[in-house]
Order: sequence, then C-alpha cells, then structure tokens
Amino acid sequence: MKKKQRGQLIVLSGPSGVGKSTVIAELLSLRDDIHFSVSFTTRTPRTGEADGVNYSFVTREHFEGMIAGNELLEYAEYVNNYYGTSLKVINEKLDEGIDVLLDIEVKGAAAVKTKCPEAVLIFIIPPSFEELSRRLKNRNSDEDDVIASRLQTAREEYREIPHYDYLVVNDKVSAAALELEAILTAEACRTKNRLNLIEGV
Amino acid sequence: MKKKQRGQLIVLSGPSGVGKSTVIAELLSLRDDIHFSVSFTTRTPRTGEADGVNYSFVTREHFEGMIAGNELLEYAEYVNNYYGTSLKVINEKLDEGIDVLLDIEVKGAAAVKTKCPEAVLIFIIPPSFEELSRRLKNRNSDEDDVIASRLQTAREEYREIPHYDYLVVNDKVSAAALELEAILTAEACRTKNRLNLIEGV
Repeated sequence: MKKKQRGQLIVLSGPSGVGKSTVIAELLSLRDDIHFSVSFTTRTPRTGEADGVNYSFVTREHFEGMIAGNELLEYAEYVNNYYGTSLKVINEKLDEGIDVLLDIEVKGAAAVKTKCPEAVLIFIIPPSFEELSRRLKNRNSDEDDVIASRLQTAREEYREIPHYDYLVVNDKVSAAALELEAILTAEACRTKNRLNLIEGV
Repeated sequence: MKKKQRGQLIVLSGPSGVGKSTVIAELLSLRDDIHFSVSFTTRTPRTGEADGVNYSFVTREHFEGMIAGNELLEYAEYVNNYYGTSLKVINEKLDEGIDVLLDIEVKGAAAVKTKCPEAVLIFIIPPSFEELSRRLKNRNSDEDDVIASRLQTAREEYREIPHYDYLVVNDKVSAAALELEAILTAEACRTKNRLNLIEGV
C-alpha cells in the first residue's frame, strides 16, 4: 500500500483586524481534513472568545513553564503578551496526513520557517490600510490609541511579506477562503510531496 | 490604477495516452481566463484531430522555416516529428493578464524553463503503467510496436518528473482538472506575483 502523504504545515499571518479568524472559519467549513492549531496566549479573552477555540488562555507563569520545558514550536511576545504554538499535537496531525493551520504573527512565522523549512507561509492583507482602520474601529473592542498602535504594527509587519510564500487579499471572505483552499490543494500537488506516487523511479 | 497581474505560463507534460487533452478540455471549461497555446507539429493528424485545435499541422519545410526565423519558444523532435511553440501569441496573452497553457513534452518543457524561469511546470501521470498501457490500447490508433515504444518513452520521461513543480495523477478527469485549477489559482497568489498589491512598501 502506498504510504499516506504527510500533512502540510500552513502558517497564516496578517495584521490585527484583517479578519483572519473569519477567513479561517470559512476555510474549515470547506474542508474537513484541516486541523486548526489553537495558539496559547497570556492575553485576556475578547468578548465572544472561548478558551480552546480561539486560543488556549493561560497565565504568564504557565506559559513560562512551557518555554522552560521546550514544549513550543515557536513563541513571541506581542503587545505585552505571550503567544505560542505547542509542538506535540501538530506532529501527530501531520503524521496522520492532516494539514495543520497556524495563525501566528510575523516573528513566530519566521521561527517556524527556520525550524520547519517545508512550512507554507501565507500572509493575509486587507484591501487597504483605510479599510483595516475601519474594521478595527467597527470591532469596538479597542480604544483609539490601541487602534493607532495596531495600525503602526501592521505597517511594520508588511515589511515581512516578501518572506511569505503567498499573499491573499481579504476583500470578500468567501473569495479569500477559496484562495487558501486552492493553495492547500496546490501545495499537496507539489512534486516533492508526491514522489511516492511515481512508479519505477 | 493598479497594474493588472501578468498571466502565468503553465507547461503541461505527460506520457502519450495519459489523457492530457481531455483534462485540458475540462480545465478550459472551468475557467475562461486561460489560453491554450496550440503547438505546431509536422506529424499526421489522428482521427478526430483538427488543425488549429489540437495542433497546427504544418509541413517539415514550413517548420524548419520557423526554426530559422527564430519564431519558436521551444521545439523538439519526437518520434521523427517536430513539435514546437510560437512565441508571439504567448507574450500577447500573458501581457493581457491571461494564463497560457502549453502541452509539451519533457525536452520542450526543459527548454521553456530555461528561457522563462517563472514558468510553472506540471507533469500528469496515469494511476499506473498498466493503466497507461490499457488507455493506449483503447485508443485503437496505434499498432502494438508503437504502443510498446510509447510505454518505453513514458518510462524515460518519468525520470524528468523531479524537474517539474507539480505532479498530478489523472485517475478521474474531473479531479485532475480541479487540481490543475487549484495550482493556477495558487500560483497567482504567490507573493512574488502580487507585490504590486502591497501598500506603502
């Protein structure tokens, strides 16, 4: 029997407010062979966010224990909070042939790419900074100075885009999700991932 | 106004009998922004093949005139016949933002990749050599010794697969066409093809 193709590690980044969570939810509704890896964070949950769904919310002490125990694929501090990715679940899913999706910011993404060069990096941008500003204001969860800080951070994150394999514009959620799905399908078709299908070579 | 994204040059190869023409026809029915570049050849049309549709059928003298006039992106001799690709139409379409699909054998594909490193190379294989043999026999257009020769050529072509970006198995035509479509969509999302969408960088 042919060996099952290993899953792909997909890293998704994009500025706060771009709508990553919504696009990811739409993508997960299109395909049942993708595992969304929930990040650990020390930040406070926003209204509507649930533990284990959007993030695994932990204390600073707990997080620093994971760092000390070498349990994280990557972690970073961002607007005074830790964000990080647990290694164990990811490897189990990849071995089962399931794609694993990570939602992490640019420093974490760079760390993943260093540790796992086969990871596929996708950056999501809004149609414009003006639109991003509008989305952040509509979210009603941040004060004006926090929004200004997020927009400044977004501009800094944009400088890292050339390190990403793919760039997707979240204008309409459904279209962005379809592009992500196409990227996952195409990456599975890469020759290097399918050498086991070639007879007699 | 943002500059329109340039089209992509897509090269499709695969052994004789794998069903490339059928898969291509299915792909073209899915998308109207793909131009299939008809190759020039000196070989005799098979039953059902039409000039300007499957190939542009020309004489040996005519073809050698095109070689001398430097009008070809690539050409190769294969089973005692010339096959080649005209450069002019391709560049016009790419400039219009239309993807151009070429159906060429492995030597031609390598020549295109050398001249146009940004070309995307896709190899199509059958589920097995046994199935390829069956498809060639069902075609009823070749004698047994020609079929044996085609199978031998297929085995030689397989050695070139590692030079291709993508590998698609034509088990079911519809599934293979969907994978090709995903590859085209994903390639258009590559960061290097979308740098013009990034503000302020």
